[in-house]
Amino acid sequence: MSTHIKNITVVGTGVIGIGWIARFLANGYQVTAFDPAPNAEEKVIKCLSEIWPTLVNNDLAPKNYLENFTFETELKNAVANADFVQENVPEREDLKCSVIAEIDQLTKEDTIISSSTSGYMPTILQKNCKNSGRVIVSHPFNPVYIIPLVEIVAGEQTDPNVVERAREFFESISMKPLIVRHEIDGHISDRLMEAIWRESLHIVNDGIATTEEVDASIVYGPGLRWALMGPFLTLHLAGGDQGMRHMLHQFGPALKLPWTKLEAPELTDELAEKVVTGCEAQTKGQDMAQLEKRRDEFLVKLTELVEEYWPAANLSGRL
Amino acid sequence: MSTHIKNITVVGTGVIGIGWIARFLANGYQVTAFDPAPNAEEKVIKCLSEIWPTLVNNDLAPKNYLENFTFETELKNAVANADFVQENVPEREDLKCSVIAEIDQLTKEDTIISSSTSGYMPTILQKNCKNSGRVIVSHPFNPVYIIPLVEIVAGEQTDPNVVERAREFFESISMKPLIVRHEIDGHISDRLMEAIWRESLHIVNDGIATTEEVDASIVYGPGLRWALMGPFLTLHLAGGDQGMRHMLHQFGPALKLPWTKLEAPELTDELAEKVVTGCEAQTKGQDMAQLEKRRDEFLVKLTELVEEYWPAANLSGRL
Repeated sequence: MSTHIKNITVVGTGVIGIGWIARFLANGYQVTAFDPAPNAEEKVIKCLSEIWPTLVNNDLAPKNYLENFTFETELKNAVANADFVQENVPEREDLKCSVIAEIDQLTKEDTIISSSTSGYMPTILQKNCKNSGRVIVSHPFNPVYIIPLVEIVAGEQTDPNVVERAREFFESISMKPLIVRHEIDGHISDRLMEAIWRESLHIVNDGIATTEEVDASIVYGPGLRWALMGPFLTLHLAGGDQGMRHMLHQFGPALKLPWTKLEAPELTDELAEKVVTGCEAQTKGQDMAQLEKRRDEFLVKLTELVEEYWPAANLSGRL
Repeated sequence: MSTHIKNITVVGTGVIGIGWIARFLANGYQVTAFDPAPNAEEKVIKCLSEIWPTLVNNDLAPKNYLENFTFETELKNAVANADFVQENVPEREDLKCSVIAEIDQLTKEDTIISSSTSGYMPTILQKNCKNSGRVIVSHPFNPVYIIPLVEIVAGEQTDPNVVERAREFFESISMKPLIVRHEIDGHISDRLMEAIWRESLHIVNDGIATTEEVDASIVYGPGLRWALMGPFLTLHLAGGDQGMRHMLHQFGPALKLPWTKLEAPELTDELAEKVVTGCEAQTKGQDMAQLEKRRDEFLVKLTELVEEYWPAANLSGRL
């Protein structure tokens, strides 16, 4: 448990808000929720009842999920005792800014105000706050109670100590906080997802494949590897003994080809060096044969797991 | 075993060529390999010896991997008896075209000539062939002996029966053939990977994150989901009861935002409808609660598997 944070308030109880509630409760925190929608409380409790068996069966949560949970119908009451507020209102800049400014008015001075925004920069979200130093972005991934990644982003006015306290807190709930070095629209992970998403829409729009075929082109191929390795390490392990150095030589020229609608940066010597040395550092001294053996064993077990949990997509093509 | 195909020849024995050799041998086919590089045979045998224990320990291959394997030092001898030739020479258009034209000269009329090219269209590769109808692209994913996806692409001159024979053959070696409806640079999967790859290079180039942090932003987050669901089903399951219909409403406007350097297509009513009905069809009548429960159970087991097989990346940020 965090030493600084005891009471958490979740503002906005859509899919992401409920996901946070589940993760906080599973880790033993006191959680208060607020959402102005009619029947919001009922919906939260129904969703928690559906999520809980999987968590309990895997020893990820205590049995009773309502013991530490309160729902409030006034924002003021919901945030009054909060040490940490997680905001999850709909993704509209004006709405997020005004809700965050209101939370800023209603909370203790040192309460951390954390936004789940998928894309807005914290500097924008904190601009109407008196105590703007405690406003950060903590961007999670659905389902929040299982996926460990959370991107922490500081705005221009954010106090670095707040980032540290948030990191410590997220580690206390078994998450993997990734501190984003410079704020940018879409942070890091959503920029990568958005690139895939936009290219997918182009492919469907151009009649190259159906949504199901696009999905199949991920889940039976690169998606299996991405559970273990990101785009850099994946290529590093596809390059033989020379790893990324070979791959940049082999596929560098393809950056100029129309293999996607996205234009690449110029592959300068400086960028190439950053990429190669980055990959080499990531392997923590394991040699290629060790890395490949480990990857292969993982992939064999993963393909069995996928087989067990998902029906084969229809790949008959030319339907 | 395929009824049409008994003898397979692999031309070019880099990482992909060796991956194919391993998959063909594991499935009981006779395999002949050719590569003009010095020590190529030795390298193939060494790599097979490293791959084999994982396959045997998981009952994916017979113990003896050399029984059905021959290496030839002349292309002519290597392809003379081939029913199926898989070409894996370096990714250069002129080289691929000339090697494929040579194979076309040296093989029986009905031998399938299949290229592993990551990005070139088969119409280009078949242009210098006499019997161009038997030329296709069959694009695999590293490691080829484990990853099931293979994209089959026909060129303008490709005989549809050849596509069918190739599909039947790949199914006989436990692969998931995805027939690409229209040829396009980068096929489907590489276009998606290339979009992520280019955006990743921009992020590193702009100093937003290191290669390790970019990789972490995939493996601890969206990468876990992509082992099970592609970009469409992932969003469909993040949209609550309304699924993709809600997500397009919520995040459609974000297509105009600079969340990636890739520009999106116009989200017309027609495209939106294609995407929504596509996702609904993919769920094969399972309701959201069932799909979410299955996804959650899968993700819990997968995160355990990742924990077991990969060292945590360094996420300390602001290093």
